[in-house]
Amino acid sequence: MKKEKAIIKKESWKPGTVLAPVPPVLVSCGGTRDWQPNIITIAWAGTVCSEPPIVSVSIRPERHSCTIIKATGEYVINIPPASEAKHVDWCGMVSGRDVDKFEHTGFTTGTSLKVKSPLIVECPINLECRVKKTVALGSHVMFIAEIVGVQVSKNYITRSGRLDLERCGLLAYAIGNYYRLGPLIDHFGFSVRKRKKKRLKR
Amino acid sequence: MKKEKAIIKKESWKPGTVLAPVPPVLVSCGGTRDWQPNIITIAWAGTVCSEPPIVSVSIRPERHSCTIIKATGEYVINIPPASEAKHVDWCGMVSGRDVDKFEHTGFTTGTSLKVKSPLIVECPINLECRVKKTVALGSHVMFIAEIVGVQVSKNYITRSGRLDLERCGLLAYAIGNYYRLGPLIDHFGFSVRKRKKKRLKR
Repeated sequence: MKKEKAIIKKESWKPGTVLAPVPPVLVSCGGTRDWQPNIITIAWAGTVCSEPPIVSVSIRPERHSCTIIKATGEYVINIPPASEAKHVDWCGMVSGRDVDKFEHTGFTTGTSLKVKSPLIVECPINLECRVKKTVALGSHVMFIAEIVGVQVSKNYITRSGRLDLERCGLLAYAIGNYYRLGPLIDHFGFSVRKRKKKRLKR
Repeated sequence: MKKEKAIIKKESWKPGTVLAPVPPVLVSCGGTRDWQPNIITIAWAGTVCSEPPIVSVSIRPERHSCTIIKATGEYVINIPPASEAKHVDWCGMVSGRDVDKFEHTGFTTGTSLKVKSPLIVECPINLECRVKKTVALGSHVMFIAEIVGVQVSKNYITRSGRLDLERCGLLAYAIGNYYRLGPLIDHFGFSVRKRKKKRLKR
């Protein structure tokens, strides 16, 4: 018997950027002879391919970091802890043309292994990225980049060598708001694994 | 005086898809004469442009939904509540070639206003998308699509006409795990707004 469902009515809204949650990351760039290190906050970021691992970040062309990344072809995605939410918000509000964001936030520049852009030491996960393709899309330019290096803060690695994501305390962005990442529900594939277990019991 | 910092050491990891959190969404497609409605779970999804609002979803070419979206040029991103985590996981584990996922999950097909693909009524936010550009990238094909319609479940809209995101109870995906979205930290721009208030007090 099909269970009776509550009737859910829909309201039509103007098309807008309501996909959620998305990762509010600190993108660091520059660090070459011509370009001082800079930081920009980006929520229009995502994974776009598994093998090779590829990400994309979208930036308005008028932003200083857009000019830097166009010139250097590389950036680092630094995944911040929720405790840095205020710095994350601030790095998206001001321009690196006017202020040294590393100096102002107190973030420490770390050495990337595969790109010239410095990483942000205080972020538990750092993805070193090399641009493969640039796509102009209306208000934003999308930089599709291969992840060529990953660095992880040792203090978040468990004895078994895994990243302790709960201790990282990640940040999420959803329709104009910053949230903490909440409690774990389960692992990828749990719906099928549990089914298999039940079958074995029979 | 600069505060003393704890020394954070880094460990280098193999490049991988560790950007987090990302949105584990249900992408519905089909619903034409040639293609039955289908659902696929995608965590490689993101916003890539604000004006016009553009998103991307990446799918392995061998997946049934990849064939459907290539043929129809449209899809709906359905943002699921955490209470549907098991169905979300399951829709990524099985193929629409073998099973009717709407039937199996009990999800209700709703009528989209701008595309032929049905939306999933039980998801509080539905983005109707029309593909603008397809980019082949190693293991995945990226479908860059304009959001041409948005529908929101009325039961999550507050009296002031805003979406009550906390009540939606969204789901997040981070490095192989599903999480609930946690508590609100603050709104976009809070770092600058608070600064302004303090200045006014002086």
